[in-house]
Amino acid sequence: MNLGIVVYFLGCILTIEGILMIFPCVIACIYRETSGFWFLGIGCICGLIGWLMAHRRPQNSVVYAKEGFVAVSLSWIVLSLFGALPFWLSREISRFEDALFEVISGFTTTGSSILNDVEALSHCMLAWRSFTHWIGGMGVLVFLLAILPMGAGYNIHIMRAESPGPVVSKLVPRVKTSASILYMIYTGMTVAQILLLLAGGMHWFDAICISFGSAGTGGFGVLNDSCGSYTVYQQVVTTIFMILFGVNFNFYYLLLIRKPKDAFKSEEVRAYLAIIFASALLITWNIRGDFSSLLTAFQQSMFQVASIITTTGFSSLDFDLWPSFSKWILVMLMFIGACAGSTGGGLKVSRVVMAVKTGAREIQSLIHPRSIKVLKFEGKPMESSLIRSLGVYFAIYFVTLFVSILVLSLENYDLETNFTAVAATRNNIGPGLSKVGATCNFSFFNPLSKVVLMFDMLAGRLELFPMLVLFSPQTWTQALKKG
Amino acid sequence: MNLGIVVYFLGCILTIEGILMIFPCVIACIYRETSGFWFLGIGCICGLIGWLMAHRRPQNSVVYAKEGFVAVSLSWIVLSLFGALPFWLSREISRFEDALFEVISGFTTTGSSILNDVEALSHCMLAWRSFTHWIGGMGVLVFLLAILPMGAGYNIHIMRAESPGPVVSKLVPRVKTSASILYMIYTGMTVAQILLLLAGGMHWFDAICISFGSAGTGGFGVLNDSCGSYTVYQQVVTTIFMILFGVNFNFYYLLLIRKPKDAFKSEEVRAYLAIIFASALLITWNIRGDFSSLLTAFQQSMFQVASIITTTGFSSLDFDLWPSFSKWILVMLMFIGACAGSTGGGLKVSRVVMAVKTGAREIQSLIHPRSIKVLKFEGKPMESSLIRSLGVYFAIYFVTLFVSILVLSLENYDLETNFTAVAATRNNIGPGLSKVGATCNFSFFNPLSKVVLMFDMLAGRLELFPMLVLFSPQTWTQALKKG
Repeated sequence: MNLGIVVYFLGCILTIEGILMIFPCVIACIYRETSGFWFLGIGCICGLIGWLMAHRRPQNSVVYAKEGFVAVSLSWIVLSLFGALPFWLSREISRFEDALFEVISGFTTTGSSILNDVEALSHCMLAWRSFTHWIGGMGVLVFLLAILPMGAGYNIHIMRAESPGPVVSKLVPRVKTSASILYMIYTGMTVAQILLLLAGGMHWFDAICISFGSAGTGGFGVLNDSCGSYTVYQQVVTTIFMILFGVNFNFYYLLLIRKPKDAFKSEEVRAYLAIIFASALLITWNIRGDFSSLLTAFQQSMFQVASIITTTGFSSLDFDLWPSFSKWILVMLMFIGACAGSTGGGLKVSRVVMAVKTGAREIQSLIHPRSIKVLKFEGKPMESSLIRSLGVYFAIYFVTLFVSILVLSLENYDLETNFTAVAATRNNIGPGLSKVGATCNFSFFNPLSKVVLMFDMLAGRLELFPMLVLFSPQTWTQALKKG
Repeated sequence: MNLGIVVYFLGCILTIEGILMIFPCVIACIYRETSGFWFLGIGCICGLIGWLMAHRRPQNSVVYAKEGFVAVSLSWIVLSLFGALPFWLSREISRFEDALFEVISGFTTTGSSILNDVEALSHCMLAWRSFTHWIGGMGVLVFLLAILPMGAGYNIHIMRAESPGPVVSKLVPRVKTSASILYMIYTGMTVAQILLLLAGGMHWFDAICISFGSAGTGGFGVLNDSCGSYTVYQQVVTTIFMILFGVNFNFYYLLLIRKPKDAFKSEEVRAYLAIIFASALLITWNIRGDFSSLLTAFQQSMFQVASIITTTGFSSLDFDLWPSFSKWILVMLMFIGACAGSTGGGLKVSRVVMAVKTGAREIQSLIHPRSIKVLKFEGKPMESSLIRSLGVYFAIYFVTLFVSILVLSLENYDLETNFTAVAATRNNIGPGLSKVGATCNFSFFNPLSKVVLMFDMLAGRLELFPMLVLFSPQTWTQALKKG
């Protein structure tokens, strides 16, 4: 393995993290909070260590799939370790494992929190917390690719390891340009949401944090009731932007280059919107008795559906009180997740659509054994290897899910708590049901369970394989042998 | 579609059901119960209708996969409809949907019951209830193949549709002989269990019913506490036989033809035994505080583990009171299930082993992209089409699971009840947790939920595809067009 390039990447990542910490420093200045000094100090340390690691480019800049996986998963761990320090050193979060949990939850855009009282945090901490969502949403290494001058075509392996979804399609042939376009769309949409929220009378600090949370499909709020006390207009804007950030970014690229016809042809986007509307209508019907008008019921169910399917995790009410039918729809949406190529998590709509199509074909081929029908997705034939890797993904996905629940169940909480805690972290959603419901938090778990949940969050964001490659002994025995 | 041969099969099945009803009649004679007359009457009607349908063999005896699937799934529905009549007509089960639920649960070897008080049933009803397990365990159509003189090699499609597991291997080239050998082993082992239980002082009626329940991996008992009041010896014998009936019957065939070396080489059997012992040890450690000695704890956890992994569903204590860790192990075992080619349900150990192997290979190929390693299972290379169909099976499996839970959740019971009720029926186990735990029953569900659970039981026993083919509109539009 090319360890030199991995170290180089880690150095770059640390430098960037140092620079990013300027943002909470600015917020601290505005609110005259002394805890801002922690960001200044740690930012400088990050910059220094980063410069030491990355000031000389390694001569061998070859990045294969393995280097891509290792660089990505190590970067995320290093990012989180340094990102957690300000919380812990300032004593605003007293235990280090809790600070780490909070920051991993931020970077992976999960949004599960260990905080009882969010409002007790200082503004600069809240800003950093929400900013991690925005950074993690599109991916730190994708950002690196956008700014780093790299010659060879190897960086697709980095992009592939960090971007969610069964197939990674570059928007344009050059990875660097693709990454830049992605970040342009991402920034533009975030600014649009901030402006619309400001227009609706939201405080500028809330508007920025909520927009970061929606953009990264993260879900950290700045109030204890998440989005419950915002106006209907503000909730509707947030709903719409959550849905928009769950769409495959290819869609926006096609709109940008004026190919709206191609954009709306996307099977994944259509299926995604269909699932959202169907779920919201079913829930509206199920909870209609709790609201004065059908419209309010629809608005509230749309908010929750959008928040869960995009794996954001904001809430505008306590959906743990909803009837079982609505709750189970939310659980199913937790697993389906957003579109591939968006900032959302979960299994991804494209994987679900492909699985349903393959299943339907299998049944049909039992009825007509001699019919040879080519399975297509997004107009392209689905190759046998794609279907196979889809099956493998499902299998590994469910194995990690079951094992995680097993370790959590050592603590003897109820099945609903364990199951939805793992489902919510594994799919990067945030809140679950029962003891980890929308009005609760994850602080009561013991350190072992928290470690498992942190692994699940990272495995969810990086789509499992990078984490498994990182923890596979084979990766390291070989790397050490070859030097 | 060749409808003639389907009708012929249904006729044969009904005739056999008529003959099988002689058994409860004999029990009724012994206990001088008048409800036995219902079996006599319905048995005669079955025989008559069966004779009308099957007295003339259709000239076209071609059976393709589609005919196999339709014949098998229709047979199971017809069998259940007639099998439910004695319960309902005798008013021992007052509602028809409950009687049907109970009989489908019997034939599919699920063992979920709607009865509050099992001991209130007359002996002939109890005997019929347990006998359905034994009939359903090995499969009715496999029995038919063993006795029916059929020329062509088409009957492998019947066997394939009714036998559980990813690949159906004939023991010997002739299907008829394979089916006979299977039934010989099955009967021999059942008789052995009855004799061993009698030797331990169990009442003959209990010994027969419990043996039927273990052989079919069904789980209907004759006492309200299932197996809780039997002696330790009787429980241990039952444990051992439950495990034995969950083994792939190929294993016994290899022993019969004196190839013990080949038999013990089976990866599936080894994995199955390893899972059983590992789970039992973990549970023993987890519940050690509840028992006076470690040995008792081990015996009790072995009983429950064997009962759940083989999908039998007997219980010797109320495992719903166990800590979450032990309960989650049982939930995982519910999904793993027994070996393919046994009488047990679930996903099957072979599928799980193949999925784990394929997953491990996928991770390895990320580390060594150029290594070409052929995946093997039971010494044979796993073909790409097998891996693909494995993935498809998992996908359809989880889709039906999630949708079933959705329909059940309309009744607003807790998630644990809905989830384990579906898991227990879909995998043909019997009891679940919470409201459908070992000491509870399924009577409180409304008719819609019961219909869903009946579908799940049939889909579980017939491995889904026959049921889906039966309910696919395409099957019938085409059949009607071609006549």
